Amino acid sequence: MLMSGPAKPLLAADSDRERTNRPPWVDGDRMREDFEALARIGSTPEGGIGRPTFSDAHFAARTWFLARAEAAGLDTRVDAAGNHSAVLPTRRRDARVLVLGSHLDSVPGGGRYDGTLGVVAALHVLLAFKQAGTDLPFALEAIDFTDEEGTLVGLLGSEAFVGTLTVKSLQTPRGGRDALMAGLRRAGLREERLLDARRDPRSLAGYLELHIEQGPRLEREGVQIGVVTTIVGSRSFRIVLRGRGGHAGTMPMDARRDAAVAAARVILRAQEIVISDFPSAVITVGDVRLEPGAFNVVPGVARLALEFRSQDDGELDAIESAVLARIRAEAEAHGIGLEVIPVARWQPSRLDPGVCDAIERSAVGLGLTTKRLPSGAGHDAQSFAPVTPTGMIFVPSVGGVSHDPREYTAWGDVVNGLNVLIGTVDELARAD
Amino acid sequence: MLMSGPAKPLLAADSDRERTNRPPWVDGDRMREDFEALARIGSTPEGGIGRPTFSDAHFAARTWFLARAEAAGLDTRVDAAGNHSAVLPTRRRDARVLVLGSHLDSVPGGGRYDGTLGVVAALHVLLAFKQAGTDLPFALEAIDFTDEEGTLVGLLGSEAFVGTLTVKSLQTPRGGRDALMAGLRRAGLREERLLDARRDPRSLAGYLELHIEQGPRLEREGVQIGVVTTIVGSRSFRIVLRGRGGHAGTMPMDARRDAAVAAARVILRAQEIVISDFPSAVITVGDVRLEPGAFNVVPGVARLALEFRSQDDGELDAIESAVLARIRAEAEAHGIGLEVIPVARWQPSRLDPGVCDAIERSAVGLGLTTKRLPSGAGHDAQSFAPVTPTGMIFVPSVGGVSHDPREYTAWGDVVNGLNVLIGTVDELARAD
Repeated sequence: MLMSGPAKPLLAADSDRERTNRPPWVDGDRMREDFEALARIGSTPEGGIGRPTFSDAHFAARTWFLARAEAAGLDTRVDAAGNHSAVLPTRRRDARVLVLGSHLDSVPGGGRYDGTLGVVAALHVLLAFKQAGTDLPFALEAIDFTDEEGTLVGLLGSEAFVGTLTVKSLQTPRGGRDALMAGLRRAGLREERLLDARRDPRSLAGYLELHIEQGPRLEREGVQIGVVTTIVGSRSFRIVLRGRGGHAGTMPMDARRDAAVAAARVILRAQEIVISDFPSAVITVGDVRLEPGAFNVVPGVARLALEFRSQDDGELDAIESAVLARIRAEAEAHGIGLEVIPVARWQPSRLDPGVCDAIERSAVGLGLTTKRLPSGAGHDAQSFAPVTPTGMIFVPSVGGVSHDPREYTAWGDVVNGLNVLIGTVDELARAD
Repeated sequence: MLMSGPAKPLLAADSDRERTNRPPWVDGDRMREDFEALARIGSTPEGGIGRPTFSDAHFAARTWFLARAEAAGLDTRVDAAGNHSAVLPTRRRDARVLVLGSHLDSVPGGGRYDGTLGVVAALHVLLAFKQAGTDLPFALEAIDFTDEEGTLVGLLGSEAFVGTLTVKSLQTPRGGRDALMAGLRRAGLREERLLDARRDPRSLAGYLELHIEQGPRLEREGVQIGVVTTIVGSRSFRIVLRGRGGHAGTMPMDARRDAAVAAARVILRAQEIVISDFPSAVITVGDVRLEPGAFNVVPGVARLALEFRSQDDGELDAIESAVLARIRAEAEAHGIGLEVIPVARWQPSRLDPGVCDAIERSAVGLGLTTKRLPSGAGHDAQSFAPVTPTGMIFVPSVGGVSHDPREYTAWGDVVNGLNVLIGTVDELARAD
């Protein structure tokens, strides 16, 4: 489409730099400015960002994104699920759209790269093609999905987009029903309209997402580009343990049904089961709330946030049954009331082999080393995998640190990722 | 003083009711009205009260108390530590003051009786003596102490009153330094003036406190009045565990230093040590905070509120050394950073044998059964024990439930307690 031979990045073609097999293939300065502008929105003293869904900082980042796209002459839109898009149209009639996306929300106290990088890169792919004046066979849409991280629901925007968001999943959302309702109100969204964000899969040419690896494999092996083959599945549950509250001085130890002690048993037992019986899976209790929560009160209630992940759906079933059985047995043995509230259930997703090949060709054409690998993190891409050809590009994460302010990816690796993303769009355009 | 022979309650002497050895010796209706008025201030849906120190509900309860005392023609005062008092003067020159007190603050989601009962009873003792026109050899002061429960510091008001509050204890308060500063500002108090609340111990005739037992012993044994011999000592610590935060999907189990797992180990090990080696002591982790606290983030930091109690100071030393050593060993073995911040340290207190005898005589004179017993809960009385003759009267708690909305004491038992308190004041007046 754009050029013959191996895919060559647009901006490199426009630049006077001598070509080498090392970054920067493009002058990434302008993208870096934008990346750093976003890193200042919701920045934390620790050097990361805190932009939980529908927080002021999150709104500010989304506003920045639309303004930046408009200033660059791109079309913009916001759909019924609050997804924010910049669009580069094509002259072709009835053309489909190739979606490039990620998210601007973060976990509390998260890093600067997770999600943000993919949105900035998507925007810059549109800018690059716009600047080159290329007439692609599809429109390009750079999209910031609502609530990928699950402050409220998780993958809220991308599932609404592909039509897999269900009314049921909105009843016991990760962040609690009250937080969801309050958040939607703050964002000016209506629950009963969220599902209207759905687009007909026939209108889609595919989906691509650039993301940091969030794990240590690429860095350890000195590989520049990860080609994601599958995305992990996960299940999450809210576990409520009800013991008996009381005075911490007068309630004898042998009369206690202490919810903190029950929570401690759940945390350790659940971890033991996964480590010993499911060595390739992970399990996490990411939050514990004790009620009432004071030095001098035996806690009567503990509320736990528990999730586990596996690349294999059958293994998810096996973990769920083993862990919940053990929790039930522990609770029963110690006279603790137990409530298990399913929160989210995401299938493992296999990404499109054709798109994986296109990513690999794009990287190899740029002289970059590649590795095929699964993703242990969930991504908006997993919403798209069942409905349209979907691919993900990973760039290395130093130390594999993520969901943490110390999250870091060298800028050269970011530019590599951007180049591979541009090249993959080009590959898909040529195949179209 | 008031009458010869065994102490007889004032209100019974004024009433036409036939005397029996069963309550009510007094018509407790008016006191019950007041008790229930207070139970409505800060009431929770569960039927308890939530009046943490310097919350709006706490302020409202204190305002109610002063207004009620003024309406009844008593003097009132508020000291530099925010303690609220009603005073019944005596005609004697240079007379000392007999202090009757407790507290109107509660733990979050606490019960209606803890603290409140003692304040209402103290007020009604003053009203009874005022109504009888008795000239006592000491002034009577009914006092509501600031922050007994430790929302901010614990025993803040009573320690300031007797002069044992230290500037050091204000540096790492139970509720955190920021909460203390904000609370003092809200209450219009100044930290540098708190110590001015101190009264010369020579100005005190003694201290009496009526309280629910908060344990099950009196109820189980069918005893009507508990005569408290000692008050438990306690030590509390804030334990900060620092692991490594990260992505819950990409951080392999064997690379984790998970603060939630570390917290679980601390909770279980600390409990095991006390149960096996210190069977008459208790230990509690009453609160756990994980950071950042989300389904999909391995927690990097856990903050625990830990306290233990014993009637014996040497045993407190032994528990502290055993538990902290075990926590240190656990942290070290799992690569977890550890910070142990001492928060409060209260010695076990022996109450005055002469006052115990007076309480017992008062109860026996009313035909009530008594039992001498230690208190597993801390009380404002422990601040007074080292400086002035101090006694505590317990009434039964159904099921021993306390620091919980289900806290309950039968009203007949409350009236017994009030009668014994009146009788004890009379005993002390006669001995003066």
